[in-house]
Amino acid sequence: MSFMKAIVKTSAGPGAQLIEVPEPQITKPDQVKVRVLATSICGTDYHIYSWDRWSAGRVQPPRIMGHEFAGEVVEVGAEVGGLRVGDYVSGESHWVCGHCRQCLRNERHVCANTKILGVDVDGCFAPYVVVPAGSAWKNDRSVPPHRACIQDPLGNAVHTALSGEIIGCSVVVLGCGPIGIFAVAVAKACGASVVYATDTREYRLSLARELGADAAIDVTRHDLEAFIAGQTGGEGVDVVLEMSGAPSAIRQAMRICRPGGRVSLLGIPSQPVELDMAEDMIFKGLTIHCIVGRRLYETWDQMRALLASGRLNVEPAITHRLSLDQFDEGMALMRDGLCGKVVFEL
Amino acid sequence: MSFMKAIVKTSAGPGAQLIEVPEPQITKPDQVKVRVLATSICGTDYHIYSWDRWSAGRVQPPRIMGHEFAGEVVEVGAEVGGLRVGDYVSGESHWVCGHCRQCLRNERHVCANTKILGVDVDGCFAPYVVVPAGSAWKNDRSVPPHRACIQDPLGNAVHTALSGEIIGCSVVVLGCGPIGIFAVAVAKACGASVVYATDTREYRLSLARELGADAAIDVTRHDLEAFIAGQTGGEGVDVVLEMSGAPSAIRQAMRICRPGGRVSLLGIPSQPVELDMAEDMIFKGLTIHCIVGRRLYETWDQMRALLASGRLNVEPAITHRLSLDQFDEGMALMRDGLCGKVVFEL
Amino acid sequence: MSFMKAIVKTSAGPGAQLIEVPEPQITKPDQVKVRVLATSICGTDYHIYSWDRWSAGRVQPPRIMGHEFAGEVVEVGAEVGGLRVGDYVSGESHWVCGHCRQCLRNERHVCANTKILGVDVDGCFAPYVVVPAGSAWKNDRSVPPHRACIQDPLGNAVHTALSGEIIGCSVVVLGCGPIGIFAVAVAKACGASVVYATDTREYRLSLARELGADAAIDVTRHDLEAFIAGQTGGEGVDVVLEMSGAPSAIRQAMRICRPGGRVSLLGIPSQPVELDMAEDMIFKGLTIHCIVGRRLYETWDQMRALLASGRLNVEPAITHRLSLDQFDEGMALMRDGLCGKVVFEL
Amino acid sequence: MSFMKAIVKTSAGPGAQLIEVPEPQITKPDQVKVRVLATSICGTDYHIYSWDRWSAGRVQPPRIMGHEFAGEVVEVGAEVGGLRVGDYVSGESHWVCGHCRQCLRNERHVCANTKILGVDVDGCFAPYVVVPAGSAWKNDRSVPPHRACIQDPLGNAVHTALSGEIIGCSVVVLGCGPIGIFAVAVAKACGASVVYATDTREYRLSLARELGADAAIDVTRHDLEAFIAGQTGGEGVDVVLEMSGAPSAIRQAMRICRPGGRVSLLGIPSQPVELDMAEDMIFKGLTIHCIVGRRLYETWDQMRALLASGRLNVEPAITHRLSLDQFDEGMALMRDGLCGKVVFEL
Repeated sequence: MSFMKAIVKTSAGPGAQLIEVPEPQITKPDQVKVRVLATSICGTDYHIYSWDRWSAGRVQPPRIMGHEFAGEVVEVGAEVGGLRVGDYVSGESHWVCGHCRQCLRNERHVCANTKILGVDVDGCFAPYVVVPAGSAWKNDRSVPPHRACIQDPLGNAVHTALSGEIIGCSVVVLGCGPIGIFAVAVAKACGASVVYATDTREYRLSLARELGADAAIDVTRHDLEAFIAGQTGGEGVDVVLEMSGAPSAIRQAMRICRPGGRVSLLGIPSQPVELDMAEDMIFKGLTIHCIVGRRLYETWDQMRALLASGRLNVEPAITHRLSLDQFDEGMALMRDGLCGKVVFEL
Repeated sequence: MSFMKAIVKTSAGPGAQLIEVPEPQITKPDQVKVRVLATSICGTDYHIYSWDRWSAGRVQPPRIMGHEFAGEVVEVGAEVGGLRVGDYVSGESHWVCGHCRQCLRNERHVCANTKILGVDVDGCFAPYVVVPAGSAWKNDRSVPPHRACIQDPLGNAVHTALSGEIIGCSVVVLGCGPIGIFAVAVAKACGASVVYATDTREYRLSLARELGADAAIDVTRHDLEAFIAGQTGGEGVDVVLEMSGAPSAIRQAMRICRPGGRVSLLGIPSQPVELDMAEDMIFKGLTIHCIVGRRLYETWDQMRALLASGRLNVEPAITHRLSLDQFDEGMALMRDGLCGKVVFEL
Repeated sequence: MSFMKAIVKTSAGPGAQLIEVPEPQITKPDQVKVRVLATSICGTDYHIYSWDRWSAGRVQPPRIMGHEFAGEVVEVGAEVGGLRVGDYVSGESHWVCGHCRQCLRNERHVCANTKILGVDVDGCFAPYVVVPAGSAWKNDRSVPPHRACIQDPLGNAVHTALSGEIIGCSVVVLGCGPIGIFAVAVAKACGASVVYATDTREYRLSLARELGADAAIDVTRHDLEAFIAGQTGGEGVDVVLEMSGAPSAIRQAMRICRPGGRVSLLGIPSQPVELDMAEDMIFKGLTIHCIVGRRLYETWDQMRALLASGRLNVEPAITHRLSLDQFDEGMALMRDGLCGKVVFEL
Repeated sequence: MSFMKAIVKTSAGPGAQLIEVPEPQITKPDQVKVRVLATSICGTDYHIYSWDRWSAGRVQPPRIMGHEFAGEVVEVGAEVGGLRVGDYVSGESHWVCGHCRQCLRNERHVCANTKILGVDVDGCFAPYVVVPAGSAWKNDRSVPPHRACIQDPLGNAVHTALSGEIIGCSVVVLGCGPIGIFAVAVAKACGASVVYATDTREYRLSLARELGADAAIDVTRHDLEAFIAGQTGGEGVDVVLEMSGAPSAIRQAMRICRPGGRVSLLGIPSQPVELDMAEDMIFKGLTIHCIVGRRLYETWDQMRALLASGRLNVEPAITHRLSLDQFDEGMALMRDGLCGKVVFEL
């Protein structure tokens, strides 16, 4: 048996350890084994690292962490049809069952039996990871590993931005974490006429500008509703992409959207949200898209086209490239919000 | 000058009067004058009659009431192109401007400058009404006036039910007022596989059954969420049409809808609504359609086809056919909820 | 080894034989073995039986024929997740690869690597058939086998009819073979306002009427274009479903469709078709859907809902129920066009 | 009465004359009078100038020519609501009736009673033009007249390119006349991953490259089908925009499109087209959009957003800016195909 050094949540409590564990082996004929070339930190990883209430209820240590990766296929199971050794892949972190009603209707992003890599099964903060062939996605060779590994959150942004019309639309992105700034870049690459971004921290607003935001508004200092009213002759924007999960932002999302417009909600509020549904939503005839995950595999297919063609440049969002043994440093950056995407290169 | 007897809100306070007023005259070249053959009572009319807070803030007496009608064109303005004397029409109660951004994008149901017949301008609880040609809709001759006059609320139901997929879908209609029971009939006529309806009053549940509900559930006596879970193997229904405006029903709408399903909201809550958006909406990937009015004129075109072909039978929903001078009786029926649609025939 | 009696194309030439062959065995971990309860004859089966040019170029004898079936799972492979022994299933005859670009985009009906049951691999005119679990579809128990087995062609009709709007639409179905008459029934069940059907044979027109056609027109005796113009005030119908493959019918499809309408083409012309594209298509702004197969598995999901709910009654289309040893009789019925669906019950 | 110098088709035969005619007057309360600042030549104008068979059958001299313009409103009719003197407008050349079934369904681009400016009524190759307020479109002030006047053909390109998905798609534009090169620019601005253009003339291919084509292929010298197969791993492109009207190009459109892809047809073939519908269309499950005109006013709204935001740069397509008295020169450029758009500035 071979061993490898992986970032492991070893016990129910804060922190993680870079320790030696057995290399994962293919145990089912539809699996592939991947040598990880790059892997990146998601907010979820930080939640598990810091051991919040959600993690305590869901994750069972010991668990190898991590779900965003790019790598090379080094072994394929006996029944794998579409992949070969040497293929360059990333992974959809949501492993779906394939036979529930949602899966059968091609709504696999809401599969009733989803398992998440690095949460429910061992993850990819490690030199090797084993995944079902059906969750591996062949990357375009022109996209380097440190960029290909961030497609899981980039896919969230693509799914959110493209869940309705975007071409020629005025867009507001609420919240400039990594997925928010990705959404700015996606909207611009896909023909949005103007993209406004909001946050409460200058570091993130500055990233949003680098990713293409026409204006980045610090909502602690400016009245967003007045700003949008001024920019749109009082009517509101065509599209709002809510990435923050803040109840106040969700309420504002409804108010800054024009009658007949679209609000797509990806940010997860941690408490109930009170809405003036009559005035802010129903009389305005809004369409609300609640977004989770990525469409398997329409979102990935769009993302590949946008990345491979160079239409979508997400490089400025990747602010830190570390090695696996710097994981405590990476988690500290996440905690302080002083980063875009933090990538580990192996 | 000719005179006519109309139901008029004569002063700012409860009640209304059947009094003599001048017959309305065409004053603009794009108007038509219509002899009213039938007109029906909307919940809004009852609100104006009983003079609730909304009415007090919006309606300026004296005002001829009423906005749902069917009648015959008796005069056309000089610039009217598509209508002739003798045409058999109903009226879209929302008069739209035609030149705001929503109108230009064919989203006239959310026109920024909407005026409402019988609210902002004199209405149709009268032998004659004058309306813009652009708000008159030519009826199929096979549909009698007492049925053609209820297309404004029927159109709400058509708009709500058909705002997304319905064919082969399991559907719940929450709230069995007139628009709710119409929605039951529309869903059935349009290929829904099964339609459940809910209310708190047996009278209305019984109407829902007559309009085709596969089951009508008294939510004061049964656990709706348990019922739907039982019917759907725990997954929820494909489509929920929320017609009640009750905050508790809106919350339930989200919970009884399957992951990836659709919730269309027409009922107007009178206070803010608190939602568990994370669990009940976002993680489930729901699509929420906020519905107002009718699509001009896609909704009317669908409605004509469904009515004229006999596919859609709404006759059992028309529970009372009165004369104009019985308006106090009609309003009492509305107050007590002991009616479907109440029609005045002239 | 067990043996069974199956209908086999034993050699390259006309005819087939009911002979003893080995029972098929599960050879891959994702397969299921099904005891066939009912199986039905498709036009393709007749082509193989009569050994037309297409068959001679594609089918390699010996080959067990047949691709439409309903049956009971009697054995499951080691890696099958969604099916169990005893499940009641039908089969999608198009086996798709799952990893080509079309499959990844959920357009599996145009998979680049499709294999067809009973054509490229051994089929289901037999007591047992082995299929990939991914091609087996769990039926609702309320639908009996002789009806559940015809879902492959019924699915063609559902896919064609529902490839665009149908609710409230006027519809023409050109060609009343089994898929044509199914399309009549589907359109009616799904809210079409009126459905006209055409054919050249009274037997088939009569079936179309039984399945719900509002009018069935013998195009050898009546001028279809004049008829449709008369019915629609000269404007044409909203939707045309072309099921015949006749070049003249395809040309007519374009001409009887209203400006802005939809033409869905399923019938396969055996030679090139000349079209007046400027006048009949482009200036009219038509939308043309070319239809092949069934959407996996949206079409099947809709079909299950329509069948299980009783909304869709296809029983009158099943004109003959035979036993396997009457296959020559069944093929003769197909040749003479004196049948709807011919089912073998086992 | 005031007079003005306009380009007039004075008699049934080739040529036109710049002559003095009465200034047009508002004669209906819904009209506006516009001072033309810029107007451009369409292929249709050249057909009328050269007096082809179509023109001879449709145009009744004397007729002021021209239908593409930008200008300033100088007078408004009594019933005009959305426009004021001083407004900066362009005109939709298709005047629609507003009350046929297509208009009522918001499919006004296929209105049954369309009149065309400069064809059926006096046009805009003149200092003043009178149009219905409903056909005037308010431009963004940032777009100069020589660019705002070409929105009618640019709108054809927007309508064609955006009639289906374009984001992340590989696209071929067949035919690089003005609308073709506009389509190249629109596709690029709206997130197409790669855009190939074809023509038979180097002048036009060169313009296509300037407008953003990733490759421009001279189909007289290269095998387009082999080229596309090579670029796409044999599968074909996602989207084909057919702008040439050549039967051979229409056939190729079907063949170079991937299974499940979209072909949008705008070019008008002058004779019937023979297609291998079975192999090239139906088995491939293509979607074919036949395109005419522009969607009123979704297309214009998208176009305004794309132009005003600077996302769409069409400046290189405007190759000639002349004065009205150079109209013979402009028509000669059109005849020889040695131009993109030819604009007259007033």
